[in-house]
Amino acid sequence: MRHLLSTKSLNRDDAVTLLDIAEDMADVANREVKKLPTLRGKTVVNLFFEDSTRTRISFEAAAKRLSADVINFSAKGSSVSKGESLKDTAQTLAAMGADGVVIRHPASGAPQVLAGSGWIDAGIINAGDGTHEHPTQALLDAFTIRRRLHGPASRGRGLDGVTVTIVGDILHSRVARSNLWLLNTLGAQVTFIAPPTLVPADTSAWPATIGYDLDAAIDAGPDVVMMLRIQAERMNAAFFPNSREYSRRWGLDDERFARLSSHSIVMHPGPMNRGLEISSAAADSERSTVREQVANGVSVRMAALYLLLSGDREDH
Amino acid sequence: MRHLLSTKSLNRDDAVTLLDIAEDMADVANREVKKLPTLRGKTVVNLFFEDSTRTRISFEAAAKRLSADVINFSAKGSSVSKGESLKDTAQTLAAMGADGVVIRHPASGAPQVLAGSGWIDAGIINAGDGTHEHPTQALLDAFTIRRRLHGPASRGRGLDGVTVTIVGDILHSRVARSNLWLLNTLGAQVTFIAPPTLVPADTSAWPATIGYDLDAAIDAGPDVVMMLRIQAERMNAAFFPNSREYSRRWGLDDERFARLSSHSIVMHPGPMNRGLEISSAAADSERSTVREQVANGVSVRMAALYLLLSGDREDH
Amino acid sequence: MRHLLSTKSLNRDDAVTLLDIAEDMADVANREVKKLPTLRGKTVVNLFFEDSTRTRISFEAAAKRLSADVINFSAKGSSVSKGESLKDTAQTLAAMGADGVVIRHPASGAPQVLAGSGWIDAGIINAGDGTHEHPTQALLDAFTIRRRLHGPASRGRGLDGVTVTIVGDILHSRVARSNLWLLNTLGAQVTFIAPPTLVPADTSAWPATIGYDLDAAIDAGPDVVMMLRIQAERMNAAFFPNSREYSRRWGLDDERFARLSSHSIVMHPGPMNRGLEISSAAADSERSTVREQVANGVSVRMAALYLLLSGDREDH
Repeated sequence: MRHLLSTKSLNRDDAVTLLDIAEDMADVANREVKKLPTLRGKTVVNLFFEDSTRTRISFEAAAKRLSADVINFSAKGSSVSKGESLKDTAQTLAAMGADGVVIRHPASGAPQVLAGSGWIDAGIINAGDGTHEHPTQALLDAFTIRRRLHGPASRGRGLDGVTVTIVGDILHSRVARSNLWLLNTLGAQVTFIAPPTLVPADTSAWPATIGYDLDAAIDAGPDVVMMLRIQAERMNAAFFPNSREYSRRWGLDDERFARLSSHSIVMHPGPMNRGLEISSAAADSERSTVREQVANGVSVRMAALYLLLSGDREDH
Repeated sequence: MRHLLSTKSLNRDDAVTLLDIAEDMADVANREVKKLPTLRGKTVVNLFFEDSTRTRISFEAAAKRLSADVINFSAKGSSVSKGESLKDTAQTLAAMGADGVVIRHPASGAPQVLAGSGWIDAGIINAGDGTHEHPTQALLDAFTIRRRLHGPASRGRGLDGVTVTIVGDILHSRVARSNLWLLNTLGAQVTFIAPPTLVPADTSAWPATIGYDLDAAIDAGPDVVMMLRIQAERMNAAFFPNSREYSRRWGLDDERFARLSSHSIVMHPGPMNRGLEISSAAADSERSTVREQVANGVSVRMAALYLLLSGDREDH
Repeated sequence: MRHLLSTKSLNRDDAVTLLDIAEDMADVANREVKKLPTLRGKTVVNLFFEDSTRTRISFEAAAKRLSADVINFSAKGSSVSKGESLKDTAQTLAAMGADGVVIRHPASGAPQVLAGSGWIDAGIINAGDGTHEHPTQALLDAFTIRRRLHGPASRGRGLDGVTVTIVGDILHSRVARSNLWLLNTLGAQVTFIAPPTLVPADTSAWPATIGYDLDAAIDAGPDVVMMLRIQAERMNAAFFPNSREYSRRWGLDDERFARLSSHSIVMHPGPMNRGLEISSAAADSERSTVREQVANGVSVRMAALYLLLSGDREDH
């Protein structure tokens, strides 16, 4: 794998390989010394054009656990914010010897531009671009589902036949898009539930069922219910339900949580708005995977960095 | 020791043990390679809800000298500032595999909440919480006093019979509170000197003498005079003396400095307001321990990280 | 070498030695593991009183490639911005055990003050001070010119007889000043071309030719044309040509670029204002050294850190 830009372009074999390597990486966390020498002498740059402490420190922890050197490059206050082009930034990082670049950018497609440009030879990982994709989030979600379903027997498997209901602001969510493609590739069946104003205009090409009624979706007994984060900054927009209405109709409150079938798991990419899209009881229950998702995020990012930056890197 | 939250809850044996280990750590600074492999593979997160470059880089230097990986997490611009709960932040850090969390927080008691919550298993070090405590500052102060008094014969000893006069804004100072409890535990006698409006309403439970007259306190010939930093942002408050009056009545100016008894030492936690609470002559004299305090801060923080994060960690 | 403060005070032997060591460091970047153990256990502090992500991460990459621990200290939001003196900051860093301090400061001369003060024993590297100097930029420029001219046969050589034309805002440019002295010491001949309002009042002591006509300068066939960055924040000042006029008279546009003699190289310290001081065709051409300059920056900074912080450090 040369880059990790989207899950839409990820084939099943590559996805399963990455999840299997993440299983190995998860074992490292249980060792006495939680560190591998694998990426010693490699430099990973966290190039963040948007703040995201959680994602940044997850990648930073992953890279350091593989013994890479990490350089944090926040675009705020840098020459980038003074109008330097992405091209010049990329060539600068290339010239400094960056082996991997983890990029978060407000513009959909920026990581693809970086990877396809020839400006830089480093492995590029998309850590979230506009409303487009956030592939490591989807991979950690798939990893989490696979582990909950199959436990130690996970290796080599996909998610065939698993039913996943994703609830929230689908229109703006890169997490929803990345999960859509990856879950589909792995054989799962995806249902989106959202307020009508928060569904994209044309979803005809999406391999998913779209619905508006969370209660009906819950009564269908999905294996997985994934609640998306509501972005507070969007709450006042005209197309957005107010928070009381949102919570009442599309929130996983205690009553809906109680009606979930006994084997269902509850997911959330974090950070959660407790009492808005998810109740504290649901968030903190045994069925919630919120904390596992964070832990698995480090393992999945270690796997991605390993695949892109170790000697075994190959063109794809 | 599982956590280092306050000096009030620290018993004498634990305090002396920590100071003795800090002596060992101070020796590392004199080696050719100033680094120990002790915490290799451990991750220390600096979780700062308030800016404090000096404290942060002291902990960062301490952790790196022990070969730990360090991740800086400034709450500014993070999801924390967008309303994420301390609980969710803590669970996130736990899931990412943080072995130690150094927390600075504007709310008194936040580190205790973190440590007592069960949200995270990491060792918690309080790096300053509201007006409550700043235990590593008090420990480095005690370490500095012990070294000045006993030199190489310091190990195993407390501060029995040492007289310490602490001068300044006692009302708002967590440094004063942490020193009060630790110095008392180690056998020293503490006197506070402050403007009447800057003394807490009820100090009846404090094992200290309270006074208002710095000249009388100096003439009493204390072993240690510790000047507290004046927070510029408080200077315009109604209860606060203006800077001219403050300096005249509660500052360690050249004249008072000259009247100190010949064996007294002068301390300040830094950064100093030269000419306000302390004169340059006092700050730069041979009796001043300001620079030793900074150097000892790294040693004391290495000792704390060692006690909390190495294999020998135990419940207390 | 004890400090690297300016190129004006650098003699030819020291400059050539540094460039030769940088050649060795450039070889490290081609290794399988791009890391040397040379500065293990040393601590380098990046003390930045001005934002400069590019320079900071270049030094950070250089120090980490030599296995030093790096602590980033941005003066923003720190006690420094609350009025702490440079003296107290320096003594703090000394007490924490900093072996090297890379300082960027808006005041010309601040690094010299730090180095000459006795406040701190660390090796000081000037990473840009006011309009005074930016010595590692000039060293990387000289390194780049030497490599382009002499290739593998560079070691031991200066730049005797090389003609260098530097174009732009000479008045405010520390890059121009550092290049002036270093290039002269190495035997090159420097010509400055600038708008009349952007030349210092008295340049009689400068070993350089001053001119105002870029076309004539280009027709003279210099070996090197170095375009300086225009600071956008100065563009509205009364003494400043507007951007259209600037570009027309002092920009390296496509037409001027085409007229350069066939062996000339084009340099720019970055980040570039494409279309203002330099055209994209010039910036991206084979003759442009912009990317090499960035790569060489890491090598030159590794060499400087090595000379100042390794065991071989000596007084000068």
